[in-house]
This record gives sequence, structure tokens and C-alpha cells, in this order.
Amino acid sequence: MTTTLDAPPLDPLLDDIVRTHRPQRESGTVPTHIPSLAAVPFNRFGIAVATVSGEVFTSGDAYVPFSIQSISKVFTLAMALQREGPVSVWSRVLREPSGTAFNSLVQLEVEHGIPRNPFINAGALVVTDHLMKETQDAASALLRFLTEEAGGPGPFIDEAAALTELSNSSRNLALAHFLKDFGNLRQSAESVVENYVRQCSIMMTCEEVAKAALFLARGGIGASGTVLSRSEAKRIGSIMLTCGMYDAAGEFAYRVGLPGKSGVGGGIVVIVPGHCAICVWSPRLDAKGNSLAGSAALADLSDRTGWSVF
Amino acid sequence: MTTTLDAPPLDPLLDDIVRTHRPQRESGTVPTHIPSLAAVPFNRFGIAVATVSGEVFTSGDAYVPFSIQSISKVFTLAMALQREGPVSVWSRVLREPSGTAFNSLVQLEVEHGIPRNPFINAGALVVTDHLMKETQDAASALLRFLTEEAGGPGPFIDEAAALTELSNSSRNLALAHFLKDFGNLRQSAESVVENYVRQCSIMMTCEEVAKAALFLARGGIGASGTVLSRSEAKRIGSIMLTCGMYDAAGEFAYRVGLPGKSGVGGGIVVIVPGHCAICVWSPRLDAKGNSLAGSAALADLSDRTGWSVF
Amino acid sequence: MTTTLDAPPLDPLLDDIVRTHRPQRESGTVPTHIPSLAAVPFNRFGIAVATVSGEVFTSGDAYVPFSIQSISKVFTLAMALQREGPVSVWSRVLREPSGTAFNSLVQLEVEHGIPRNPFINAGALVVTDHLMKETQDAASALLRFLTEEAGGPGPFIDEAAALTELSNSSRNLALAHFLKDFGNLRQSAESVVENYVRQCSIMMTCEEVAKAALFLARGGIGASGTVLSRSEAKRIGSIMLTCGMYDAAGEFAYRVGLPGKSGVGGGIVVIVPGHCAICVWSPRLDAKGNSLAGSAALADLSDRTGWSVF
Amino acid sequence: MTTTLDAPPLDPLLDDIVRTHRPQRESGTVPTHIPSLAAVPFNRFGIAVATVSGEVFTSGDAYVPFSIQSISKVFTLAMALQREGPVSVWSRVLREPSGTAFNSLVQLEVEHGIPRNPFINAGALVVTDHLMKETQDAASALLRFLTEEAGGPGPFIDEAAALTELSNSSRNLALAHFLKDFGNLRQSAESVVENYVRQCSIMMTCEEVAKAALFLARGGIGASGTVLSRSEAKRIGSIMLTCGMYDAAGEFAYRVGLPGKSGVGGGIVVIVPGHCAICVWSPRLDAKGNSLAGSAALADLSDRTGWSVF
Repeated sequence: MTTTLDAPPLDPLLDDIVRTHRPQRESGTVPTHIPSLAAVPFNRFGIAVATVSGEVFTSGDAYVPFSIQSISKVFTLAMALQREGPVSVWSRVLREPSGTAFNSLVQLEVEHGIPRNPFINAGALVVTDHLMKETQDAASALLRFLTEEAGGPGPFIDEAAALTELSNSSRNLALAHFLKDFGNLRQSAESVVENYVRQCSIMMTCEEVAKAALFLARGGIGASGTVLSRSEAKRIGSIMLTCGMYDAAGEFAYRVGLPGKSGVGGGIVVIVPGHCAICVWSPRLDAKGNSLAGSAALADLSDRTGWSVF
Repeated sequence: MTTTLDAPPLDPLLDDIVRTHRPQRESGTVPTHIPSLAAVPFNRFGIAVATVSGEVFTSGDAYVPFSIQSISKVFTLAMALQREGPVSVWSRVLREPSGTAFNSLVQLEVEHGIPRNPFINAGALVVTDHLMKETQDAASALLRFLTEEAGGPGPFIDEAAALTELSNSSRNLALAHFLKDFGNLRQSAESVVENYVRQCSIMMTCEEVAKAALFLARGGIGASGTVLSRSEAKRIGSIMLTCGMYDAAGEFAYRVGLPGKSGVGGGIVVIVPGHCAICVWSPRLDAKGNSLAGSAALADLSDRTGWSVF
Repeated sequence: MTTTLDAPPLDPLLDDIVRTHRPQRESGTVPTHIPSLAAVPFNRFGIAVATVSGEVFTSGDAYVPFSIQSISKVFTLAMALQREGPVSVWSRVLREPSGTAFNSLVQLEVEHGIPRNPFINAGALVVTDHLMKETQDAASALLRFLTEEAGGPGPFIDEAAALTELSNSSRNLALAHFLKDFGNLRQSAESVVENYVRQCSIMMTCEEVAKAALFLARGGIGASGTVLSRSEAKRIGSIMLTCGMYDAAGEFAYRVGLPGKSGVGGGIVVIVPGHCAICVWSPRLDAKGNSLAGSAALADLSDRTGWSVF
Repeated sequence: MTTTLDAPPLDPLLDDIVRTHRPQRESGTVPTHIPSLAAVPFNRFGIAVATVSGEVFTSGDAYVPFSIQSISKVFTLAMALQREGPVSVWSRVLREPSGTAFNSLVQLEVEHGIPRNPFINAGALVVTDHLMKETQDAASALLRFLTEEAGGPGPFIDEAAALTELSNSSRNLALAHFLKDFGNLRQSAESVVENYVRQCSIMMTCEEVAKAALFLARGGIGASGTVLSRSEAKRIGSIMLTCGMYDAAGEFAYRVGLPGKSGVGGGIVVIVPGHCAICVWSPRLDAKGNSLAGSAALADLSDRTGWSVF
């Protein structure tokens, strides 16, 4: 369907969003297992909107690089679908909300090694395993993809942070070995976790993330051509909406009404189908692991613009 | 946002959908605990589309009454929100996908009596308990609501079927007593289950269901005035999309991309926000309890019209 | 094997146990769902030992009636085995420790309606259902059995307490309806729960319980003849040891080393095979629902007498 | 208590047990993840009884070495208690039956990294981690212990089998990394699993296992002095009885009535407190992973001798 936006002008709106939602005092949590994330000042807040017509609107700390963490899962999924095709990808991971924590092993045991969706850690490890079929250095392949879509050399892997995170990866190693035990991992558990952690340690700005995600708002058309078919692009949106916010996907769909994917680095990427991609970032997290200020800002933005898909 | 539909003409399209998807031979299952459902001929297939502009398009068995079963949960939720308000309703039931079967007691135990969402049985029992605050005969109140929205005296409660189903309601009684044990039921377990079963036993045609659900496509505006605020109507859509198809919500979002709610009577109601409400019906079910032919028809319809919200 | 006891003289030993373990100040909990239990003074403490040679040793409040609660499960199991035979009984309930709380519905769902053992509530409901095959008033049948074995008219059903407990039986009703749903209950859920609650509300003294349980220490020989075969009696002992103390069976086996069964009334019955039956009672409970002072006293008694079976 | 045995003479009895229970045709299963075990002829059957008075009775293949597998867990637990003391050991592992499979990760997640008992794999990994405090080569330390208690140089590590098993250890690596994530592993996950697998790969005969376990029947007194206090020895017996047979501990307690520990190599060690240690071996397993013929033989032996502790 064709869409005409009746939204208010974006520049003053984003500025107002920043004014309203930038944290005034320390609240929320930071992930204890990733020291580099704890060091980010609590009052960082940035937002960027990249539209399908090529404009980019930003406000706040939209040009400060942050750790994309699980936002990477959207892009690795797109890459795996592009390279291996949906049949192969969906034979090893489901597309259902999990109803449990993102790093739970329980569901994996009950469902015999088939992760519920590609956005919980177990599913993302399977996706990374797919990418490693082509290259052992899947993290660098992701970096190249992001750099191309973001349209500049900004994104980089914070290798020091990756190393530290790798030394705290017992839970992900447990998941990977468990997948291996069920025969759902081709590469070694250690190498998959290493690539996974390096993918999560990619640093990008709100502006870069919004531009990199634009192909999902544009029916699969990326910076220099088709990334995915229109239908696959839409379907990634559906998975973001049902599974993208850890165990708060329903709440986010209720309050924001848009496909989104969060990371424990405090970033959230959101797609307004046919119109724009949004990235908001603020480091402090709520109890479900999603950016506290970022979620509130997106709910506010959705209310003011009427961008909910519902 | 304003929406212009580029869809093909609906009349021939619906006829073609019926031709393509009406079951040719017996496959799928019927619920064993509700004898009246097993008696429906396997090759029944109907579809109706009610648009926000007031038109209704139908094809196949669109005027044959069927048992709405869990489709009723969308309407009781709307009624509870209308009468008790969101604060009261959402204090007793969550809005998250469950990741488990619709009648599971496990989640309820783990989350101490708060159902994951209003579309699993436990959540629907809590919603019915809300409605009973006003009247002990909540099922008749629902019938009046549906009759008014559907615009005619068609809908009726199949009391004989309800009685039979009630005598096979051990699982729902277990859920209700369990809710009671957690202090999340005000009325007696027995009376809540009785109302719940009678609500599920309401008979309607595809045409009536589509018209009755139209207020959700029309920002909350019903047949004779406001049922819900625009924002509450959108939010019911978000819950349908994330939780409406039992444990296949993700799959349905992926294939159809629209908010939907199914019932074991073989009906599915779907909302195209701002445009129309659809009801499709065919009695045989897939392994997750959703209409086999109905799901396929909706995926096909979504592909051909581009109505996906993503 | 023949057993010779090298234990110290029992009379002074029991007096010392009472002196040491009678609670000096209020600690531990009482079950909130059974008001009559909360009214018992915290410092009640009684102990009785009935030997296979016919002697009975007592100390403390050994002649004060208390609510036997789940201790009744040992006796109803014995009655069901006596009347229906092991094949019938064990076709509907397993003999494995549960690893979950005594009133959990989770295990029942995972194992499709077959309770893990006869001492969790679900299993005891199935056992009561067995007894009701012969008489609808299974609780009175149990009372007759206990009166005969205890050798006097002491035991009685506290009908007022039973009525109150029945009005707080939502969890047990949930379990019973759930069993019914799985086809593992012949009588109505309501009537089984009523009998179950009345069985639990039987009042007995330590002296009476010890005498009533003596047939288990005596290879199945009761007050006036064979209750069970030697092998069935031993096997009830094995189930007590592996499953008799809710989710603390392993801990009790470790500390006491004897087959035991506790009740939330604060009583614990213990069997020293070939030698004696013991009942200890003190109303305040630990976190697992077992008598705080009673457990400690039995560990002490086992250490001092060497009565552990290991 | 002093015990006098009224059992029949052992030599003809054991010969008869072998005649009755040695498998006549192939039935039961072998563990697929350990190729060396699958190669053992299905009709192997051996039994040995070592009495506290120093006699050893044997029959069948009692002098053929087999892979002790999880039987090792009894001995590593004894060694950890001996070296670290009960306070340290029991702060990191519980003593309760698990109610789930021996290699399940579910319980570990629910109970935050504290294994239910030392005989499920997770618990045994924690015990091995204890032993590694003293020496990185905990498997060789266990071998020395077993050699000394068995009274001869027979036991050896099948290093080739260990290597193969190690390459199929994804599940155990998952458990170890999961324990590490919860902070309940001091050594590296990889080194703990390697030691664990080498311990499991120790080869011993029935005669050697029975003699090595004799200290548990003798109140803690081993071949050349005290291994454990009488009370700790009894307590290991209680854990064997409640947790020693995977998820069939209740069934084994019911049928055999003695503390036992099985291994997937087909061996079972059993303690008759104060009297003897028994080892039976036959390679084919039942659905719970316990020796099919071995379990039946022990039930028969217990019936004929009256050795049940109940």
C-alpha cells in the first residue's frame, strides 16, 4: 500500500524528544558482564531517522559511536537469508516468540536444539554459524555489510571490548555447546561464540545504524542494490515485532507498535515500513534489558507521529 | 497515516481465494473435546471482508454460522477495556507472547497466577471475570455487543453445544481454580468457566464477524459510536499480532503480516488497520489449532494485496 | 535380616530430646491457608515411639491431638494397595521423587497427568479416588482404619477445620480438575478434594500415630492381622524415604536416614524397619513445609541411636 | 545396630543369579555417544559380593574389566568429602533427587547453578572441580584411590575411549560452561570436563568395584584406614538411595531397597550397610540408562536375601 505521512516536521520533534527523554539522573542498569558498557555516561541520548527518500534527521548524541550488541542480530539474519536462502536458515531456527529470557537454555532443551527465533542468543549463534560457511571471519563480513549500507567508514569492531566480553562468555559457550550437542552447529562452539561476540562489539552511531537499517524500510533495497526481496524484508520486520525486544516484545508492540530490535549497549533500531528507519540510543536499561530512555522516547515518538503499524 | 490501497478488485479476488483454498479432501484435525465442531463438513470455506467505507465483500460459505470459539477473546477484551479501563485490566494479565500451548498451566505457575496475555485461556478467564463484575451473565452481554456491531440479529449462543463443552471443561476448570488460588479471580471458578464456554459457543457467520470486528480497523469507532479510543484499538491489534494465533503467532506474522485471532471452530478474524476487517472460516485445523485452509488463504490474500503491515 | 538394637534406654532419651528440641521462642512458619493450624501454640512438642514388641514410649505433648494432614497419605496409600492391589494403584501414579513443590501442576502437565508419586498432592488425590471406588465416604473409611490400628477411639475428623480448609482448596481443585482432564480421576474433582481434605483434617496424638504406623515397621502386620504383605510394607518405606518429605526428602534421608512422612500440621511419622514407628510433633515449619523442631529432633535421635538404615 | 544375616549361602545363589539373568538375546540399548561401550557383547554378565568380613564371592564375568562411567561419581564424592570436608562440598551442590534427566540443563537454570545432587552430571562436574584444587590430574588421583581400595593394580584409564568420548562431550561442556557462568566452577570448563571423562573411562572388574566400595558398607573404613567418618559413609548411602539411579531412583529403591549407583557402562554398585558391597555388570541398558539385566538381578537378589534396608 502507498503511504503518506501526516507527521509533524521531524527536526523540532526530534529535538523535543531529546529534551524530554535524555536522562536527568542515574537510573536503570548496565550489563555487569561487559565492563566497557558500564563506563558510558548515563546521560547519553541520541536519535536518528533515515527516510526512504534519502533524508537523515538527527538530534542529541546521534554521532557518538556505541556498542550495537544484539542489534547486530538483525543484520546477520539479513545476511544469512541473502547468502543461504530462507529454506536453509529456517530449517535450523524457528520464528516464534520465546516467552523466556534471551539467554535461557530451557527452551533449547525442550525443543531439542532448535532455537525459537534468530533474536535470542541461541538463534543468533545458529545464524552466525550460517555466515561462517562462507568465511571464518564472519564478524568482518558483517562489518563490511554495515559499512556499505551506512555509507561510510565509521563502523569498527572494538577488539579490546570483544576480548573482555569473550572472557565472560560462559553462558554463550554453554548455549553453543548445547546446540552442538543437538547437531545444530557446523563450526566449533568456540569459533562461533568468538565471531558472535565480535559482531556484538561493533561500534556505530545512531546515524549509521539508521542508515544501515534503511533497506528494511525500503522493501529490501539497500545502498547499492537489492539486499533482500520485498517479501523477505517484510518478514524480518514481522520477526522484529514479535521477537525483537527480548521478553518485552509484546509490551513494545503495545506501546510503540513498530518492528524494533534492541541491544544491551542501549541502542534500539526501529523500522517504519515504507517510510524510515530510526535508531535511538541511551545506555541505561530496564529490567528486561532494553534501553529505558530509548523505549520511552520511541513510545512518545510513535504517539506523536502516528507511525504505529496498527 | 493515510492509506491508499493499490489492491486488485475484491470480488473476483475473493472468489478465486475460495476456489483455490476450499479443501478438496479431508485433512487436518478437529478438536475432540467439542463434539459439535467435529460434525461440520470438512469442505466448508467462507470469507468476508468489511471495509471502513462500509462495503462488505463475501465469497463461499460466508453466510453459514460457525462457532466463534476463541475469536470471542478479542471482543471480550475490547468490552473489558471499555468498561473497566486499561489500568484495571492490565493489572491482572500481561501482554506478552506465551511460548507455550494456549491451555498450559506451567506459565501460570511460574508467573504466580498472572496470565501472559488475554488470548491464552487463562488470560481470557480473567477477562471474563472482569465482565462479570457488571453482570453474572457476561455471555449474553457479549452477544448483545456482537449483535449490535454485526448489525443484525444473526449471532446466537448454541446452548446445547455450550452444555456439552461445559461437561468437557476440566482443563479450563483447572485453570480457573489455579487463578483463584493465586487470588486472580473474583467470581467463582465454576461461574467464570460457564460464561467463558457460553461465549465460545456463540454462532456467527463470516460476514457478521468481519462487521463486528470493523471497529478495530476503524480506530475504535463501532457501528453506533466509539467503542474504544484510537490508541486502545491499535493496541488490541498489537496483541493480536503478537499473541493471536496460539503458539503460531510468529509464523502467522511472518506469512500474513496482519493482526489476527483464530478459534478452534476454524474461524480467523484479521484486521487491516485503517482499511478493513476480514473473517475466513474453514473447520479443519493444523497442529497448532489454527484453520488449515484459512491460514493458507490469508497468506495468499496478503501476498496478492500487499496488505501486510510490514 | 534380624536386628538387635544397641540403643540407649528410650525413656530418658525421649525426655532429653523433648528438653533439647521443644521450641523456646517463635520461629518457623504456619500454613496460611489453614487457619486452625495457625492457632496452635508454637511451643508444642511431643514424641512417641511404638516398638514391634508392643511397648510405647512417649514424652512431651505426646497425648495432644494434632491435625495429621499429609501423614494421612501413608495410610491411604496402604489402604489403596490393600484393596485395589499394586497393579491397579501403580498404573495411575509413579514412585519417583518429584524435584518440585508438593502442589506443583508443572510436573503433571509434563508427564501427562501421571503424578510422580503418591505423596505429592496430585498423587494423593489419585489414591483417594481409588478408595472412593468402594465408598463415597473415603475419609470415614480411613478414620476406621486409623482407629483400629491405633487401638482406641481417639482419632476424629475435625469437621469444622475441614470445612474451612475446603473453602481454601483452589489449588487442590485445580490439581483434581487437571487430573480429570488427563483421564486420571474416576470420581468428580469436587468429591475427591472433599474426601482428601477431610482425611487431612483427622486429629490424632503422637502416641496414636506411632501405633497406627507400626504395621509398616512390622512387615505389614497390623493390630489385628495382615494389612499388607511384607514386601509391600517395605516398599511403602522406600517411597517414604525417597518422597516423604516434600522437596526435602534427600536432606531428610541424609540427616535422619529413615523413611518418614511429614504433614503441615507439624507431625512427622518415621519407620525404623523391624523395630519401631516414631511420631514427633511440633507445629512450626521450615521453608520446605516440614516441622522445624521435629526434623531436628529426629536427626538427633537417629544420631544417638544409630537407627539410620544406612 | 548390629546385623545378623539369615541369607542363603552366597556361592550357589550368585551362580543361580547369573544363570537366571544373563541375557539370552539382544535387548536394551547402548549409549550412542560412546562407541567403545557399543562394542561390548550383549550377553556379558558378572556379579561380585565383597563382605565386611573380608570374603569375596563372584560369578559370571566378574573378572572382565568394564567402563565404570558414572559409578565413578560415588568415589569422587567420597574423595572430595575426605579432602575438602562436607561444608565446602555441600555449599556448591544439593542433596535432593532431581526429577529430571541426568544431563538436563533445565534444573541448573531454575536453581541458579547449584546442581540438585552430586550424581547428576552437573553435580559430578562440581565434585571434580573440587578434586582439581589439589591436582590438575584428578582422574589419576581417583585411579590411585580405586587401586588402593580394590587391593591390586587392575584398574586403568582407557585413554583411547576417553579421547573418543571427549570429542562427543558437547553436552557436558555446555553444563560446565553453564556452571562457570553461575560462578560454580573454579577450574576451566574444558579441563574439568576432560578430567570428568577420564574418570568415567576407568576400567574395572565387578570384583574390583565391589572391593573398592566396601568402605561404604564398613562405616567409612577402607583398605588401609579411615576414608570417611561413619556418619559421612552412611550419608553417601542415603544419597545413593535417593539419587543414584538417574531418574529411576524411586523405582530402584522400591524394587531393590538398597543404596546403588549405576553407570552407562552397564555396571551397578550396591551397598548393604554393615554387611557387604555388591557389583553387578551387564552392558545393555533400560530406558532410564540403567543396566537391564543388572537391575533385575539385584531385585531378585534382594528378594531372596532380604537385604533391603526397609
